[in-house]
Amino acid sequence: MFAVNGYGMTSAKAPLKPISFNRRDPRPHDVAIDILYCGICHADVGLSRGEWGFATYPCVPGHEIVGIVTRVGDAVTKFKVGDRAGVGPLVDSCRTCAPCKEGFEQLCDAGFIPTYMGPDADFGHTYGGYSGAIVVDENYAVTVPASLDPARAAPLLCAGITAWAPLKRAGVGPGTTVGVIGVGGVGHMAIKLAKALGAKTVALTKSPGKVDDAKRLGADDVLVTTDPDAMAASRERFDLLLDTVSMPHDLDGYMALVKRQGELVMVGTPDQIEAKPLSFVFRQKRMSGSFIGGIHEVQELMNFCAAHDIGADIELVPIEQVNEAWRRMIAADVHYRFVIDMATLPKPSA
Amino acid sequence: MFAVNGYGMTSAKAPLKPISFNRRDPRPHDVAIDILYCGICHADVGLSRGEWGFATYPCVPGHEIVGIVTRVGDAVTKFKVGDRAGVGPLVDSCRTCAPCKEGFEQLCDAGFIPTYMGPDADFGHTYGGYSGAIVVDENYAVTVPASLDPARAAPLLCAGITAWAPLKRAGVGPGTTVGVIGVGGVGHMAIKLAKALGAKTVALTKSPGKVDDAKRLGADDVLVTTDPDAMAASRERFDLLLDTVSMPHDLDGYMALVKRQGELVMVGTPDQIEAKPLSFVFRQKRMSGSFIGGIHEVQELMNFCAAHDIGADIELVPIEQVNEAWRRMIAADVHYRFVIDMATLPKPSA
Repeated sequence: MFAVNGYGMTSAKAPLKPISFNRRDPRPHDVAIDILYCGICHADVGLSRGEWGFATYPCVPGHEIVGIVTRVGDAVTKFKVGDRAGVGPLVDSCRTCAPCKEGFEQLCDAGFIPTYMGPDADFGHTYGGYSGAIVVDENYAVTVPASLDPARAAPLLCAGITAWAPLKRAGVGPGTTVGVIGVGGVGHMAIKLAKALGAKTVALTKSPGKVDDAKRLGADDVLVTTDPDAMAASRERFDLLLDTVSMPHDLDGYMALVKRQGELVMVGTPDQIEAKPLSFVFRQKRMSGSFIGGIHEVQELMNFCAAHDIGADIELVPIEQVNEAWRRMIAADVHYRFVIDMATLPKPSA
Repeated sequence: MFAVNGYGMTSAKAPLKPISFNRRDPRPHDVAIDILYCGICHADVGLSRGEWGFATYPCVPGHEIVGIVTRVGDAVTKFKVGDRAGVGPLVDSCRTCAPCKEGFEQLCDAGFIPTYMGPDADFGHTYGGYSGAIVVDENYAVTVPASLDPARAAPLLCAGITAWAPLKRAGVGPGTTVGVIGVGGVGHMAIKLAKALGAKTVALTKSPGKVDDAKRLGADDVLVTTDPDAMAASRERFDLLLDTVSMPHDLDGYMALVKRQGELVMVGTPDQIEAKPLSFVFRQKRMSGSFIGGIHEVQELMNFCAAHDIGADIELVPIEQVNEAWRRMIAADVHYRFVIDMATLPKPSA
C-alpha cells in the first residue's frame, strides 16, 4: 500500500479538511491513477453528510475523476502507464448478475461498490477522488481520449453520463425534439449532448436570466417555465423531456409538454412527486427514472465528446477552496460544475 | 333516418329511463348494426353523470357493443349483412393526423368522436349502445368472430382492449412475469389474456377472498397486497405490473415489485398519485399510462380471443335492470362485467 493525501470529513457535520490515508498496491487487474482533476457533484454533499441514509467516516468524497495511469497490474490490458483514465461513481460490482453481464453495472443486483464510502476489504471503506491518487480495477475505469481537456472531461463521469444514458436510450437525434428541464450541472451537459446528437434542443428554465447562456450552451430555443403563454404554446412539443431538477416541482405541467406516447425521464430526486394519472393515461405518456450509466456507456460518452469536442463548462478551484465551492454549489452559484485542480494538493511526504 | 329505442339519462342526476331517438341511414361507408349485447363500463357512470367534465343530454351510454350487421353502405368492403360486428368507445376520428395514420385512433390529435356524447352533425351528439341499433363507419367497427359468445365478447371492446394493448406493447409472453393489480372488469380480462399469451401471471388483490377466483380466471399465483411478508417476498418480481385500480393507492409499494428497468402501466385513473422518484431512478423503472387501443388492436384482440376461446366473465341483465346493475357495479358487486341483453329492449313501434 501507499500513502495519499486528500480532503475529507471526519463526521457528517465537519467541514472538509486535509486527510492522509492509504491506497492498495495494484493487483493484477488494477490500475493506479494519479488524479489530475475531480469534479464536485451535488451527491458529494448529500452522501458525505449522511443525508442518503448511510455514511462512514472518515469520508473522502469525489466521483468525477480524471488522471494519469502510473502503474498497471500484470493482467491489465486496457491501459498502459501514461494513459489518461477516468473513474466515476462506482469502482466495482458483482460481475455475475444479469445487469452486470448486460453492462449495467450501476444496476448490479448485489449493489455496486461506490467510489467512496463503499465496502472495502483492505481499508474498511472506499475513498474517493478528492485525493492525489486512486487504485481501481481496469474494468471500472474508462479511457479519456487525449483530445479532451481533462479538467472539462471530469464532470462527464457523473453529470455527463446522467444526461447521456437517457438521451441515447431514447434514440434522440435528427427529427426529435428534446427538452432539458433545469440548466445546471446535468442540464448543461444534456443541452450540449442532445444538440450534438442532432436533436432540436430546448432548455426549460424558470429563470429568464438563463436564456442567453442556455443558447450559448447550444439550445435551439429556451422555454421560460414561469411564462404561462409560452408553456401553453409548448403543449405536446417534446418527444423526450429530461428532468434534472431535484427541487419539488409540478410534474403535470411538464407532462403536458410531452408528446403523445412520449416520455419524461427523471434524473433528479425530489423527495416526492405528485401527478394526475390523467397526465399519463389519455395520451399514453410515460415517466421513467435513469441512474448514471454502465461503464460501456461512459466510454461511449467519452468517445462521443472527443469526436464532437464537448466538455463541461467548469470553474476550476484549488483544493483549499473546496468548502467554499460546496457552499456556492448548494446555492446554485456555479457555471456549471466545480472541478478541483489536484495539482494544488500537497504531495505526501516521503 | 330511423327510430330506435334505448335507455338514457335526461340529466346528470336522473336515472336511466326508456328513450327513443333516431339513427342516420347508412352512408356509403356505414354499417347499420342491430345491437345484441352491450357491456356496462365504469366509465358509463362517470361520463353520463358529467363527472369527467363534459356531458350532453339526453345521454344514451354504452360502448361495449356487439351486434349483427343489418344494412351496409354501397362502399362497404369489410362487412356484409348478417356479420357480427363490434363497436367500442370511439366511432370516428380525424383520420389524417399521425396517430390516426399509425392506427392509434384513440390518440387522435383532433380528439376522437366518442360513441356517446360526442359531436354529431345529424343529431347534435352521438348516442351509445344501451339501444337497439347503431350506425357506424365500417372503419370504426371490428369483426366479432363467429366462434365467440357475443355476450361475453362485448366487454372486449373496452375492458378487454384496455388490458390487451399494454400487454402486447410490452411484449409479455413465455419467460415474462406479469402482475395484474385489481381483479375487476379490466383486471379479470388482463389475467386471462396474460395467461393466454404465455406469461407467468400473478393477480394482486387486497382481498384474500378473491384468491380462489383469481386462480380460476387463470392466475398462476395470487399476491395479497395486505400481507407485508408476501409483498416483501415479491420485491422486483414483475417485468410488467398492470395497475387497473382507480382508487388512491400506494404507488411506491407497487414500484418496489417491478424488476429493474421494468414498468408499471396505469389504466385506472385515481385523482392523484404520489411517489418517490427514488422508486424510479435507482433501478431505472418506469410508469406509463395506457388508454384503450386502436381499431386494429381491438381486431387483433378479437382474433386472439377467438383462437384461445376467451370471453369476459359476465352477468347478463335485462335492460330494465340497468339502474340496479349500475348500483351494484359502483359497489364492486359484479363478477366481472354486466352485459345488457338487448333482446329485452322493446322494439320501436312502426
